[in-house]
This record gives sequence, C-alpha cells and structure tokens, in this order.
Amino acid sequence: MAATPSTPLLKDELDIVIPTIRNLDFLEMWRPFFQPYHLIIVQDGDPAKVIKVPQGFDYELYNRNDVNRILGPKASCISFKDSACRCFGYMVSKKKYIYTIDDDCFVAKDPSGKDINALEQHIKNLLSPSTPFFFNTLYDPYRDGADFVRGYPFSLREGAPTAVSHGLWLNIPDYDAPTQLVKPLERNNRYVDAVLTIPKGTLFPMCGMNLAFDRELIGPAMYFGLMGDGQPIGRYDDMWAGWCTKVITDHLSLGIKTGLPYIWHSKASNPFVNLKKEYNGIFWQEELIPFFQSVALPKEATTVQKCYLELAKQVKAKLGKVDGYFLKLADAMVTWIEAWDELNPPKGAITTTKGPAPKSK
Amino acid sequence: MAATPSTPLLKDELDIVIPTIRNLDFLEMWRPFFQPYHLIIVQDGDPAKVIKVPQGFDYELYNRNDVNRILGPKASCISFKDSACRCFGYMVSKKKYIYTIDDDCFVAKDPSGKDINALEQHIKNLLSPSTPFFFNTLYDPYRDGADFVRGYPFSLREGAPTAVSHGLWLNIPDYDAPTQLVKPLERNNRYVDAVLTIPKGTLFPMCGMNLAFDRELIGPAMYFGLMGDGQPIGRYDDMWAGWCTKVITDHLSLGIKTGLPYIWHSKASNPFVNLKKEYNGIFWQEELIPFFQSVALPKEATTVQKCYLELAKQVKAKLGKVDGYFLKLADAMVTWIEAWDELNPPKGAITTTKGPAPKSK
Repeated sequence: MAATPSTPLLKDELDIVIPTIRNLDFLEMWRPFFQPYHLIIVQDGDPAKVIKVPQGFDYELYNRNDVNRILGPKASCISFKDSACRCFGYMVSKKKYIYTIDDDCFVAKDPSGKDINALEQHIKNLLSPSTPFFFNTLYDPYRDGADFVRGYPFSLREGAPTAVSHGLWLNIPDYDAPTQLVKPLERNNRYVDAVLTIPKGTLFPMCGMNLAFDRELIGPAMYFGLMGDGQPIGRYDDMWAGWCTKVITDHLSLGIKTGLPYIWHSKASNPFVNLKKEYNGIFWQEELIPFFQSVALPKEATTVQKCYLELAKQVKAKLGKVDGYFLKLADAMVTWIEAWDELNPPKGAITTTKGPAPKSK
Repeated sequence: MAATPSTPLLKDELDIVIPTIRNLDFLEMWRPFFQPYHLIIVQDGDPAKVIKVPQGFDYELYNRNDVNRILGPKASCISFKDSACRCFGYMVSKKKYIYTIDDDCFVAKDPSGKDINALEQHIKNLLSPSTPFFFNTLYDPYRDGADFVRGYPFSLREGAPTAVSHGLWLNIPDYDAPTQLVKPLERNNRYVDAVLTIPKGTLFPMCGMNLAFDRELIGPAMYFGLMGDGQPIGRYDDMWAGWCTKVITDHLSLGIKTGLPYIWHSKASNPFVNLKKEYNGIFWQEELIPFFQSVALPKEATTVQKCYLELAKQVKAKLGKVDGYFLKLADAMVTWIEAWDELNPPKGAITTTKGPAPKSK
C-alpha cells in the first residue's frame, strides 16, 4: 500500500476526554502534544472540589452537578465514583474523534529515547484502514515499509474503516487484582513496534487508559456501564464497552486496532481495593464471554444505536439470570442511547436549545 | 503465568526439513544452531545432480527417485520442481517436531546485533500454549515479563496446545509477484518483538520459509499440495497447507502462533517467474478464502486424518467448479493421507518392513 502521508493534527475534529478526581498536573508533561486540542474533563466524586487545570489548555469541565443538570433523570446511566463516568464526555463532545487517557499516564519514550506522541499515532491508526477479515503476518499493511504478504486476498486489501485505536502501556501493565497480587513487581518494558487489527469474531480486553475512537462510527457503543458508587462491580467499565463495541464493529464491518502507541503508566492502583471491585466481574465474566461470543445481531440493525439497543435486549434476556445487576445494566444501556440521541440529534433534525452549558475556561 | 524455563534442545525429537536444488552452503552459517539436529534434505529437480552438504551435519537425503521408490504410485501426490516437495520430508520423519527452512534464509540479528537462534525460539513457541479463544493485548502471555491482562477470562488462561510456530523474515519480505513488481526495493527492517496466537476463526497466509510444527498434533494436515511441474499453479503450496491447517487446528482446539523468530531472507525470487506461477492462485484465491472461512467439519472428525479427508471431500464438492485442478488436488489430498498412514502406522499396529531407505550420511 502507499505510504501514509504526514499525519494531520485534526485539531478541530478531536476532543481529549479525561476523567479525574484531582488537579491535572499530569498535563504539563503532555503540553507539547495536547495543547492544540480541546479537553473535556469529567470530574468524578465531590462536585464541590475545585480541579486545577494547568494554564494554557482549552477545556470544558463537567462535575456531577453538571451531569445531573444536563441529563436530568437520564443521569442515572452515568457512573459515579468510578472512571466509567468518562463516557459522559464522549456524549457531550461534538467532534468526530475522541482520545481518552487516564491522569496517571505519562509520556513514554520509544527505544531511541524519543518522547512518544501517542495522539499522533492514534490518529494514524484511525485514519488508515483495518484488516479484520484476514490476518496479515507483517502486522499493519498500511504502515510505511510494510504491505500485504503473499497469499493475502486482493479483494480484501482495501480493508475496513477503523473505528477504534487501542493503545498500550509501558511500566505498569494493566493486570487484574489477582495478577497484581501475585506479581507485584512485574513491569512491562517490552516495546513491541506493531499495530494490528483484532480479527473479526475475536473478543479482546479493551482498556480505557489510552484509547481513541471515531465517535461518528462507533460513539454510541462506547458506554462504560454502571460501575462504582452503588454498584456491585468496578474496573469492568472499559471491558464492557470493549465487548459491546467489538460485536458491533464486527456486525457493521468496522475495524479495531491495537498496539502502538504506548503511554507510561506511572503507578499501580491498590490491588486489595481492586479485588473488591473486580471479584464479581471475574466471576460473571465467565458467562459474559460466551454470551458475547455467540451474540448475533439482526440484519436490520444497520446503525450503532440499533445494534446497541438490540444488544441491551439480549443482555436483559440472557444475562439477567446471571445476576439482577444485568437487568439494571440493560435498562441503563437503553437510557444511555436515549441520552446520546438527545444530545446528538440526527443532522438536520429540529432541536430545542437544551444542551450542555458546562464551566468553560 | 510462570516464566518459561530454559529452552530444551529437543535434539532427538526434531528434524529439520530442507527442500533444495543446490549445494547447501547456507548451512555453514547455521552450524552453531543446526548441527545438533538431524536434517532431512528433499532434493528437488534432477535426481542425478549431487547436492553437497557441508561436513559434520547428520542428514538423510531424498531425491525424486527415492520419493518414487518409497511411495510407488502414491508419489503422485508429491510435487516436483517446486519447494512443495518438502512435505515428503514431513512424512518420512519419525520425530515429534519439524522445522523447515528455505536454503536462501540466513541467520538474522536481533536489534542488539546478536545472532538469532531461530530454532530455539520456535521450540519456545511450540512448548508453550497458544491463546486462540481470546486475544491478549500484551501478546504472548506465557513469555517472561508478560501475562494475561485485566479482563482476560481466567477459565481460558490454560490456553491450547500449540501446533504451529510461524516465523517471519527480515530483509526480503514475503510478497506476491504484483507487490514485488510495484515495490522492488522494499525491505523489511522492522523487528517486532512479539509472538502472538492467530485467533480461532481467522485465516492467515502461512509461509513455509521459516516454519515449525508439532508433527504428532498436526503433521497430516501439512500437505503442500500439487504445485510446479505439470500443475497450473505454484507458490501457493504453503498457503494451501496453512488454510487447511488453520481450519483443522480451529476444529481440534489447537493453536497457531506467529511472530518471532526472524530469519534473514537473502534474495527476492524473480517476480516475472513468480507471476507466471501465481496468476491462477491470485484468481482462485478469491473463491478459496470464502470456502475455507465457511468450512464446517463434523464432530466425528476427531483426528487430523479424519478432518483432512473430510476437507478433501468438501474441496472436491465445492471447489471443483472453480477449476478442474481442484478435483485433482482433492484426490491428491486423499493419496497424501494414505501415504502418510502407510509410513506412519498407528503405534502398536503390525507393519511390513517396507519403508524409507534413503541415502544417509
């Protein structure tokens, strides 16, 4: 394939969404890369707390009071005291692309010692096609110096539009609590210089720490579920979004890439606290995976919203017996889509003036 | 997962199969790595030609006369004037593992400048499980310094036995003739430090240049088809074997890994000659891929042989209409299994003394 031209900034087409409970000092390190972009900060926890954002960044900030005011009763679908609240930011954005990053993620260095511009690599990933229908052994065939290998069908070389770019983490790997407990000292220091497409029909564990996606292609599927305060589960927000997203991208013939870029994950969260959040998830997941592996979406589900509502229906019908939590989650999935459509009316539709009015810089 | 202990040599359990038409000078470079092993050399082309093997290697060599003598009328399933003839070596081996390599492949260097012991990495790959049922974003979870990430179901962490280890190539990438013609100067100089499992349900282009497999687990599926002399196609031998192998490993819950190790592929073959060999394959492949993507093997197919014979039946029924060649190929697939079973009778079966008697060193 032709070499990718230099990567566009997409300054007016991309929002950076950051969920946080603290001052955003970590942005200092990202300044050279993030300052051109608009930030959407979703403040979790006590809304009275003032979050400091370093000078010079263009941002809007939403706390729980804003979420409640903007969504009214539908705010019930947005998690509280859990980074799952970040998906509110996806909903209020008006941009085509979203990049979301955790506030304990720093700039990583490539093997030559150069700072990695994670966002630039995500944009590269999103702007070039994916290859979900057949595996290419030399990884991303659209990358400079690579191509499709012998035996790759020519009819599949156009690939599919890329909906999601899943980036990775150096230093602290994204392990579950049991693995953290067993391997407290393990660090990820292997820089794997590759981007690849997760094949169609294959599920993967999507981590929300360093994630970009095309909001227009897949936004309504990026619901991070009901986690944290008042819920029997945490730390499965991104996983849930990932499984839903994967079955929908598969159905709609869209692609998901994983690999580069790396960020530097600075510190491990407390494994004992994590275990408490995760234990139901670890147990339920054994039923969730077979469910998602066998989900079939009907032909009529031609939009992300339709797919998602169908999925909600199947979650209710098939996972409700695993735990009552899934009945609540299925309802929240429907509420999420209603709220999404309210804030993102189809182009050309008549809308009221109701909408976000956040604290802006 | 626990760190892999130091890699065993498997000296008495592995044969190296090399198809060739020339003196095997390339072995000099591999001496430190290959000399402990037994080589099976399959001489292609004129049987009168004498192939020189460097001193000190332990080998047996088969030319076309040997193939004809050992297989009798069943020799028709072994290609002539094509490196597909290598699969004869898989059949006559009595070892558990096979490594096959082309004679234009040299020792590659890792990014630190150290010679890569390709065989050692293949053995590592074969001796540790695969993860075909769910994707791990940190690649091979059994590798030192890696593990399963958060969200990977615990019930799937035992993985599946690894049947195939597919290694890659630095320098000359394995491109088809059209890509070679369009990008004559492209070289692969990206060392991707990863091994990963090709997920269940996903086809890939398997290259025979640098390939290892577990003969006991998957040997009878490693038939390289009818190529070369008298056939309307070439350079699809390994692809054919790869597609058959993949649907069978998927059916039998075995795994296939790709990635490390790299070899140094020294020279590109002639793209004009390659185009002549490939053009039917490029065309037919557009029908073959949907065929292999939708093949279903019956529950009763519990051995590789049973799977392969069932596949032969479906090739005949469904691909015969693409071209008469596939009727011939389907018959050859059956012959191959008959020959395999003759040379590899089930353990404990009464056998005649008939068997290979090659020219040995």
